[in-house]
Amino acid sequence: MIVAMRQDATPEQIQRVMDRICEAGLRPERMPGGERTAVGIVSAIPAPLRASLTSQLESLPGVDHVTQVSRAYKLASREFHPADTVVQVGEVAIAGPAVVLMAGPCAVESWEQMREAAQAVRAAGGRVLRGGAYKPRTSPYAFQGLEEEGLRILQAVGREVGLATVTEVVDPHEVELVARYADILQLGARNMQNYPLLVAAGKSGRPVLLKRGMSASIDEWLLAAEYVMSAGESRVLLCERGVHPLDRTYTRNTLDLSCLPVLKEITHLPVIVDPSHATGNARLVPAMCRAAVAAGADGLLVEVHPRPHQALCDGQQSLPTESLAGLVAELRRVAEAVGRSL
Amino acid sequence: MIVAMRQDATPEQIQRVMDRICEAGLRPERMPGGERTAVGIVSAIPAPLRASLTSQLESLPGVDHVTQVSRAYKLASREFHPADTVVQVGEVAIAGPAVVLMAGPCAVESWEQMREAAQAVRAAGGRVLRGGAYKPRTSPYAFQGLEEEGLRILQAVGREVGLATVTEVVDPHEVELVARYADILQLGARNMQNYPLLVAAGKSGRPVLLKRGMSASIDEWLLAAEYVMSAGESRVLLCERGVHPLDRTYTRNTLDLSCLPVLKEITHLPVIVDPSHATGNARLVPAMCRAAVAAGADGLLVEVHPRPHQALCDGQQSLPTESLAGLVAELRRVAEAVGRSL
Amino acid sequence: MIVAMRQDATPEQIQRVMDRICEAGLRPERMPGGERTAVGIVSAIPAPLRASLTSQLESLPGVDHVTQVSRAYKLASREFHPADTVVQVGEVAIAGPAVVLMAGPCAVESWEQMREAAQAVRAAGGRVLRGGAYKPRTSPYAFQGLEEEGLRILQAVGREVGLATVTEVVDPHEVELVARYADILQLGARNMQNYPLLVAAGKSGRPVLLKRGMSASIDEWLLAAEYVMSAGESRVLLCERGVHPLDRTYTRNTLDLSCLPVLKEITHLPVIVDPSHATGNARLVPAMCRAAVAAGADGLLVEVHPRPHQALCDGQQSLPTESLAGLVAELRRVAEAVGRSL
Amino acid sequence: MIVAMRQDATPEQIQRVMDRICEAGLRPERMPGGERTAVGIVSAIPAPLRASLTSQLESLPGVDHVTQVSRAYKLASREFHPADTVVQVGEVAIAGPAVVLMAGPCAVESWEQMREAAQAVRAAGGRVLRGGAYKPRTSPYAFQGLEEEGLRILQAVGREVGLATVTEVVDPHEVELVARYADILQLGARNMQNYPLLVAAGKSGRPVLLKRGMSASIDEWLLAAEYVMSAGESRVLLCERGVHPLDRTYTRNTLDLSCLPVLKEITHLPVIVDPSHATGNARLVPAMCRAAVAAGADGLLVEVHPRPHQALCDGQQSLPTESLAGLVAELRRVAEAVGRSL
Repeated sequence: MIVAMRQDATPEQIQRVMDRICEAGLRPERMPGGERTAVGIVSAIPAPLRASLTSQLESLPGVDHVTQVSRAYKLASREFHPADTVVQVGEVAIAGPAVVLMAGPCAVESWEQMREAAQAVRAAGGRVLRGGAYKPRTSPYAFQGLEEEGLRILQAVGREVGLATVTEVVDPHEVELVARYADILQLGARNMQNYPLLVAAGKSGRPVLLKRGMSASIDEWLLAAEYVMSAGESRVLLCERGVHPLDRTYTRNTLDLSCLPVLKEITHLPVIVDPSHATGNARLVPAMCRAAVAAGADGLLVEVHPRPHQALCDGQQSLPTESLAGLVAELRRVAEAVGRSL
Repeated sequence: MIVAMRQDATPEQIQRVMDRICEAGLRPERMPGGERTAVGIVSAIPAPLRASLTSQLESLPGVDHVTQVSRAYKLASREFHPADTVVQVGEVAIAGPAVVLMAGPCAVESWEQMREAAQAVRAAGGRVLRGGAYKPRTSPYAFQGLEEEGLRILQAVGREVGLATVTEVVDPHEVELVARYADILQLGARNMQNYPLLVAAGKSGRPVLLKRGMSASIDEWLLAAEYVMSAGESRVLLCERGVHPLDRTYTRNTLDLSCLPVLKEITHLPVIVDPSHATGNARLVPAMCRAAVAAGADGLLVEVHPRPHQALCDGQQSLPTESLAGLVAELRRVAEAVGRSL
Repeated sequence: MIVAMRQDATPEQIQRVMDRICEAGLRPERMPGGERTAVGIVSAIPAPLRASLTSQLESLPGVDHVTQVSRAYKLASREFHPADTVVQVGEVAIAGPAVVLMAGPCAVESWEQMREAAQAVRAAGGRVLRGGAYKPRTSPYAFQGLEEEGLRILQAVGREVGLATVTEVVDPHEVELVARYADILQLGARNMQNYPLLVAAGKSGRPVLLKRGMSASIDEWLLAAEYVMSAGESRVLLCERGVHPLDRTYTRNTLDLSCLPVLKEITHLPVIVDPSHATGNARLVPAMCRAAVAAGADGLLVEVHPRPHQALCDGQQSLPTESLAGLVAELRRVAEAVGRSL
Repeated sequence: MIVAMRQDATPEQIQRVMDRICEAGLRPERMPGGERTAVGIVSAIPAPLRASLTSQLESLPGVDHVTQVSRAYKLASREFHPADTVVQVGEVAIAGPAVVLMAGPCAVESWEQMREAAQAVRAAGGRVLRGGAYKPRTSPYAFQGLEEEGLRILQAVGREVGLATVTEVVDPHEVELVARYADILQLGARNMQNYPLLVAAGKSGRPVLLKRGMSASIDEWLLAAEYVMSAGESRVLLCERGVHPLDRTYTRNTLDLSCLPVLKEITHLPVIVDPSHATGNARLVPAMCRAAVAAGADGLLVEVHPRPHQALCDGQQSLPTESLAGLVAELRRVAEAVGRSL
């Protein structure tokens, strides 16, 4: 429910609306707006309460009208927040005019590997360095990451080379630790509905890159974002990484690029595309990067590795660092064709 | 299996290889190649026969070596036909340097509707006019198309305005009739494994636009193309139109654009993208057109209607004709960014 | 829309209702009912017409009330036909108290193979012999069936041994031919939305076993049944054969047994289960047969072969004929546990 | 890799094999076996090491032969543990001759609700009481459970009435708390690949009921079980609860019963079926319970509620408690038909 105030509503009148909502046991949220203020009700409103609350709010002074909101998510919805959210990470603006390239290895393996990768990313025009320190692996016997040592390398190399950093966190009780090292917290596809983790990340003070679950609908994904946002963090980056495929002969997942124009319509949050995990095949990554930019992606998350065939994790989907500059040149042309830069 | 002949192999030596394959009850196919000839075996080779046949063929004069082929499809495979197939329809070259726009209404409804649509398509730079005369509808009580009268309108309007035409055929025994009117025969997603129809279309003398089935893997799709090709028609256009979606809240299907770089690697056939049926929502079509061109599509199949809200079929996914020119201007920029025209 | 007549309505009053529906350009259908008659409107009713037609029909003499029908399918719906449809094929009643076993090889290969299979089916208590003469195969180079010779063998062996027969038809123009030989026409999963074939089968005078499409929803499946029924044939057997799977490591498809209680609620048609195609693995077939019977299946369609490892088609999913008797003994106990026989 | 010892192998020889494996940096596991001992290597063996290790082990005294193991999971595999695992929870044996009924409300709501439910479960022959205290809900605004108070109610009512208890845990750092109250820890579908949670549960000392993820393949599910087992807990109950469906018109998920015979072949762990979450519709639950028992389920997890229409969570899929006795009578007949009791 959204309570639109009149243009001449006083701060006291707005406060009275907010108080009335609190008295009903619900949570109000002041909503951004150019000419006039509105107040949204974030909580789910029990059906029996709906009609009486609407008429009570409509009768308060300064209220223009009350609108019912159709979607289950509120804070993530464009209905509540019509303007695009631009997430600022240091000097990098995500969802600004420039498409942001985030790149790096699947896993942090060593100082040397990260430095080589970071320098190539920086040289090619990338702005964010990725690298996993805690790797959620399907098998308990696979390499699980360097943990805190990996975080240390990632942070130091990022600062050295001049890149912001993003890395995955998998345990709610490690959020604080990871947030000390990384600029952006990544929540993986397997954890999209790990609610304690979503809540912990939402309280970390860091922007959150939220990957779409393997078989998550768009509404389930936005409700996951809503968990992060209702815990306090409004800077959520949605990251499409492919959904469960029809078959796996040629790709690991099916990249769902039509989510881009859908999301641009219903949410104000930035949308990032990860073609590396979506396809699982480095040869397919350049075409999917071009398509993502053309479809309106605000950023790309791409796996690169100095020596993909020696990677401890996901080598077959990592581009060699030396191919990055050529790819970026291509993507820059596509970005310009759709009115953006890169 | 592919038998690569030596560069100096004589026509008689080549013939002897082909004869030997026929004697084994298998079907040989002469394969295009710049410097030297090869002979492919199109039929499936029974496992017990494989080793002895290989050594027999290797011992024939003029034979350089014999290669095992990994894929179940042959004629559709790049292994058999390394160069891109460019399909010429009148003056239109599909899979040439220009991305080809095919557009028109879902169903042919009237002379007036088709004329308005065709003129808009032509004015915007489209080259092929689409329009259904036989509509396969999920419900037997829905509008099923104008049938032969629809074909007549499509053909006449196409000629009048200067556009090639494409239309769907659903019954093997109507292929001949439809082929008299249309320049390209469309086989729909529901009929991708309708083998009598595939064979009939393959004998029609017309190029065939073969839509991917709702849950068809890429290999099943190429095997369907193989049915058309082994019946005689090498000019098959593969058309991606979305696969079965995770959920249908926002899109009718999931457009699988990663099939584009996959197909470019494994087949020589042109690939067309239909974002209208994939999304089922006209507002999502422009972004998906841009993405398709950026990912390497050779053509687009787009539904447009002079008055979408009055359409007898699929109005919600049809662009209004007046928006076509603006969309094409956008797409032209993307095409140029990836080294093509439109 | 269903027009419920009063118990004392006269034949003339019923006729007048039917005439009024025809005058509106719609198709009436007299509906079975114990105590009183109803008239259904089978065609889709254009929205603008709905309100006025309702009030006109309600004002006619003998009319009790008019009900809106929620489903897109009519003839297949329990709303139109509350009692279970029992399909009689010779002496076999499908959807009667006994669960009906239909079994036989995937493909008719020879007189000997069919005789061995048929005798085992008959001895085990089976009532219907299956065997394909026209095989729709994913690859054009795979064995495609013995065609009319296969039909001849199937019919002769069925009569000899005392079993009704079911076989697939794939081309609308072969329906008449196949209907001369077989007692039940099978329409395969790949052809569930092959509308000319559905219509031709609906006019053949034979009951139709309609397999569910690989990714068909239940409503799409019932609308396919509606095509057959609106063409004239009310004896449609719905056959669940597995839907597109998550992955194919262990099963070819995912058998969707929850469709059984769903279908029993919304349609009056018999439901058959094919665990052989669903699993693609003979070792899994017995457990899935037991589950299907327990969940309420009216029949089973099971592949058996005298020598599965020599089968020309789908050997890995065929039970050896000698295991049939043991399986039937197991299934009989389960059938009795749920109040049926076998 | 499995090292089969000779029947007359001495304890010292077995120890030497285990030591040799440890020296190679790998983890040995003594494997159960009637007549002779075997030693399995649980860790993934680096490819370069495989051949030399095999020949070294084969040359050790007392070794009969070395077998390569095909599956990525080890402890969960029948190759490593040929006999069925029977999980004993108090007096209840899961995967013994009796099928075990686990039932109760979706969420613990009150003492009264739990007592009513528990008495009905006990009276009907159920052995385990379910009830959620921590509810992972798609929306952050939905009821999230009574937390520790819920655990307290569940435990007390279970003891009062004489039922073991199972409840979900969602946070690795709450595992210890939940394990103090509940007899079995449930890990939900959304958390199937929440690896810190799997490891924590594996160290809790409680048996773990592991639900299959929404789009998890059987191998991914068994690898999740492997995480629990390699952390120390061998008593894992696999619980099938439906996979992502084709569409949601009639069911929330698609119950995949064919996983039962597959799992019985490849793993020794008990398999439980949850038809309530799978279908999301109480009317479909009885048929799916019957099918699950017929297909070989070792237990059922069923939602029941004294007043389903007042349930705070998932009311539409909860059976009313008064229907439980009738359902159990039905299921008992099916269980007996397949050689079990209930």
